[in-house]
Amino acid sequence: MKFLSFVGPTGASFGLVRGDAVVDLGLRTGGDLKAAIRDGRLAALARDHGGAPADFRLDEVTFLPVIPNPGKIICVGLNYLEHRREGNHAETAAAPALFVRFPQSQTGHGQPMVIPRESDAFDFEAEMAVVIGRAGRRIARADALAHVAGMSCYNDGSVRDWQLATNQWTPGKNFPATGAFGPWMVTPDELPLDRALRLQCRLNGQVMQDATTDLMMFPVADQIAHISTFVTLEPGDVIVTGTPGGVGFRRDPQVFMQHGDVVEIELEGVGILTNPVVKEPA
Amino acid sequence: MKFLSFVGPTGASFGLVRGDAVVDLGLRTGGDLKAAIRDGRLAALARDHGGAPADFRLDEVTFLPVIPNPGKIICVGLNYLEHRREGNHAETAAAPALFVRFPQSQTGHGQPMVIPRESDAFDFEAEMAVVIGRAGRRIARADALAHVAGMSCYNDGSVRDWQLATNQWTPGKNFPATGAFGPWMVTPDELPLDRALRLQCRLNGQVMQDATTDLMMFPVADQIAHISTFVTLEPGDVIVTGTPGGVGFRRDPQVFMQHGDVVEIELEGVGILTNPVVKEPA
Repeated sequence: MKFLSFVGPTGASFGLVRGDAVVDLGLRTGGDLKAAIRDGRLAALARDHGGAPADFRLDEVTFLPVIPNPGKIICVGLNYLEHRREGNHAETAAAPALFVRFPQSQTGHGQPMVIPRESDAFDFEAEMAVVIGRAGRRIARADALAHVAGMSCYNDGSVRDWQLATNQWTPGKNFPATGAFGPWMVTPDELPLDRALRLQCRLNGQVMQDATTDLMMFPVADQIAHISTFVTLEPGDVIVTGTPGGVGFRRDPQVFMQHGDVVEIELEGVGILTNPVVKEPA
Repeated sequence: MKFLSFVGPTGASFGLVRGDAVVDLGLRTGGDLKAAIRDGRLAALARDHGGAPADFRLDEVTFLPVIPNPGKIICVGLNYLEHRREGNHAETAAAPALFVRFPQSQTGHGQPMVIPRESDAFDFEAEMAVVIGRAGRRIARADALAHVAGMSCYNDGSVRDWQLATNQWTPGKNFPATGAFGPWMVTPDELPLDRALRLQCRLNGQVMQDATTDLMMFPVADQIAHISTFVTLEPGDVIVTGTPGGVGFRRDPQVFMQHGDVVEIELEGVGILTNPVVKEPA
């Protein structure tokens, strides 16, 4: 099943994707996708409304971030060996490097990713995002995947000079409309979490990153076990699981996203997250 | 004026502190302290209810974190020269190092600060916290202090081995009940923000940190200007402004907080934040 958050003719809502059509679940049951996950209603919603007449075509709605209002967005850094190597980081690590995005930094599929006034060093990062379905603290590795509600694409857009101005990356990861999340999430019944999925970033059609998710140094189950040691994971929380090699600022010459570019993140089994890139007006 | 959040006989509420008494504002007007700040109601609440009969004594309520539900908690690292020196960091910095706490990591005055099962390296950090009163993006330095609703004490309790396991500090700053925030916030009409305030940490009565807030390398106005460049500050957001020298893990021999300890953070003009330290049961 594929679930999305969107703005339609009657306002913000969430729904089920069927082919190129949307069944509006907010209209039928109220609430938002995070609440539906929290209440364990996804399977029942699909069963009860999956066959309903479609309300919109996908090209008629404005996509929101899959979860517009997560309680927490925890991002994993340096989680693919090629990306560690290109940054001259040690090839092994005892634990995943974790930083935080605020929900206000997110944007949806089809919406602009914004190069802020303060910088032109805006880089792409293709990632798989997982959405937490069931709350837990100190989740055992063996149980971890049962806590996942779905998978999606994430472009963890990074303002490199602000990210690296100090040793903590927070500023460069939190400018508005830098984290693209979509177009929808796919539930594990349709896409098993233990499959190696191809993950690509394309900039204006040119492949910039190309890897498979089995190359993560800390797989999703490890991430959930580690993170839930120090914080309770809640339904709707998002883990952004790290980017492979090929980012722009480690290339020679460096590549940064420019006004007018189109950037795509494709995750096998999920789909393609596409965003135009715009420079914020002065 | 002093405002606090607390749990009283009728549940979670917020109020005004008058001497050793509390006027329950939640009871009279509904909502919570963050909402009262957002709605610009603090001065009117003090005017309309400041003379009301007290509802409780301070020792009859359970203190919550001053803002239990901030949208964002942004913490400043390495913001006092002595603390930079004791950690062998460069003596200057182009920008403040910023990391994030989640609200779930907070605890109130008088409540236990918890050494988690996974570590015994639990350290104190005396800090001044500021609560944002008025929203803003790209706030000019000259306007910044007008965006502050109040000041409080913060003990940015740090699980050092989890903080320093990678180059990003998130895990060691987010175990439950490690960030103590209280006892109340004092509004700028009572305590001007441009005054140098003495800031102390005492562990079992022994002074461990002792400095004044004018020693910050990036003063509060600079922090607000810098942070609001990349994120919109919202009412109720909290900035934890950095700790002076004297932290436990940089001492020789190292000092960590132990089960049964009592830790106090005193900020001149605000008061004393006191917490017992407990080891989480296995």
